[in-house]
Amino acid sequence: MTSAAEPVTAAILVIGDEILSGRTKDRNIGYIAEYLTAIGVDVREVRVVSDVEEEIVAAVNALRARNTYLFTTGGIGPTHDDITADSVAKAFGVSIDVDPRARAMLLEYIKPEDLNEARLRMARIPAGAELVPNPVSKAPGFWIGNVIVMAGVPAIMQAMLDQVAPKLKTGRVMLSESVRADAREGDVGGPLAALAKAHPGVTIGSYPFADESGRPNTNLVVRSREAGLLDAAVADVKAMLAGLPRR
Amino acid sequence: MTSAAEPVTAAILVIGDEILSGRTKDRNIGYIAEYLTAIGVDVREVRVVSDVEEEIVAAVNALRARNTYLFTTGGIGPTHDDITADSVAKAFGVSIDVDPRARAMLLEYIKPEDLNEARLRMARIPAGAELVPNPVSKAPGFWIGNVIVMAGVPAIMQAMLDQVAPKLKTGRVMLSESVRADAREGDVGGPLAALAKAHPGVTIGSYPFADESGRPNTNLVVRSREAGLLDAAVADVKAMLAGLPRR
Repeated sequence: MTSAAEPVTAAILVIGDEILSGRTKDRNIGYIAEYLTAIGVDVREVRVVSDVEEEIVAAVNALRARNTYLFTTGGIGPTHDDITADSVAKAFGVSIDVDPRARAMLLEYIKPEDLNEARLRMARIPAGAELVPNPVSKAPGFWIGNVIVMAGVPAIMQAMLDQVAPKLKTGRVMLSESVRADAREGDVGGPLAALAKAHPGVTIGSYPFADESGRPNTNLVVRSREAGLLDAAVADVKAMLAGLPRR
Repeated sequence: MTSAAEPVTAAILVIGDEILSGRTKDRNIGYIAEYLTAIGVDVREVRVVSDVEEEIVAAVNALRARNTYLFTTGGIGPTHDDITADSVAKAFGVSIDVDPRARAMLLEYIKPEDLNEARLRMARIPAGAELVPNPVSKAPGFWIGNVIVMAGVPAIMQAMLDQVAPKLKTGRVMLSESVRADAREGDVGGPLAALAKAHPGVTIGSYPFADESGRPNTNLVVRSREAGLLDAAVADVKAMLAGLPRR
């Protein structure tokens, strides 16, 4: 990992009808978002699209154009509805075929007599792509341009992300501190807006929750890449909270 | 609810930095997707964007233009980072101000002396919008054009969706049947592709999972709006599975 001066950004593209129908509940977005944030890559946007080539191509091209990286999940299995690799090849305008390196990886897991046409789909890799090893079940993901294509099964996706992370360009990590307000969100909203304005380089988020006794409470999350700015804003937030009328 | 001949489609837009940073794990996408699918509304795409006006405006306009409905969650609270209502007004090119109906709703929950400027933000509603009542904490959502704006807190969002659902135009419900293959995905992939081609009007998804004894297994999900087409495809899927070599 190298640390860049400019923010390093990412988008996430989740591919699959089963997410859009609600049959499968996505568990990858939150995992990838938290992981990338922790290493200094800002996730700027997320999309979920169906297993339709033109939708995938359009989303890949829109998201890769305006982010440092695009991470995709899903659609790289052995069945007819797994069209991610072909769609990504189309988005890049490159050819796609069975990759001998990927075929060799499959043969570490699959007996040669079982390597049928369906399983060979999992070795179809766009021309020019690097492979992303899959320590769980061998069928690899791949990395082409700034697009990293991963499996949809969470355990496999997570293993692939671990392979990729050390090679990513990263920015300065976003620091954050959470302050429990012990106040209702509507009571901190006014002073908080003034504080946010007074602290450029810092963002302050406000998240209501019900506390142990069921009373409305609020978490304030202060974020900055600069430790000094963060500390100053947190100090002001705490002073503001101390000045609120006791409830 | 009225049933239309054409598919009724929806997009979901989740608004909030806390989702993109991974601090908060989204629980709304899967809920809304499953809910809408069950009543005959097809979710075609999902996006998550940050609390930045131009991002919200662009996503609202892109998604409302090509879907019957757009459902948004998040960003309608009392703090400075809650900018969804203003952004939606901007997307529609209409004015926004404190709505007397929404103000009256807030006063059912909040004492008049507590109705400060921050809380009044929650009564800011774009001109021409219908309110969506909030039985949990009163601050309403709203419905403008084909866009339905809901809270991000799951319990409140769910209550709002219950209010809205009876008024939605709905299509024919997508029927689905899940068949446990008791086979590895790579062994069903070939015959399944042929079956999918032979059954227009039906989609067949394939989802690998590890069964009780840890062996790779596959769920096949057959979907169609036509009961007859569904039954015929399911019968063919079962016959195909029965013809596979025993493992």
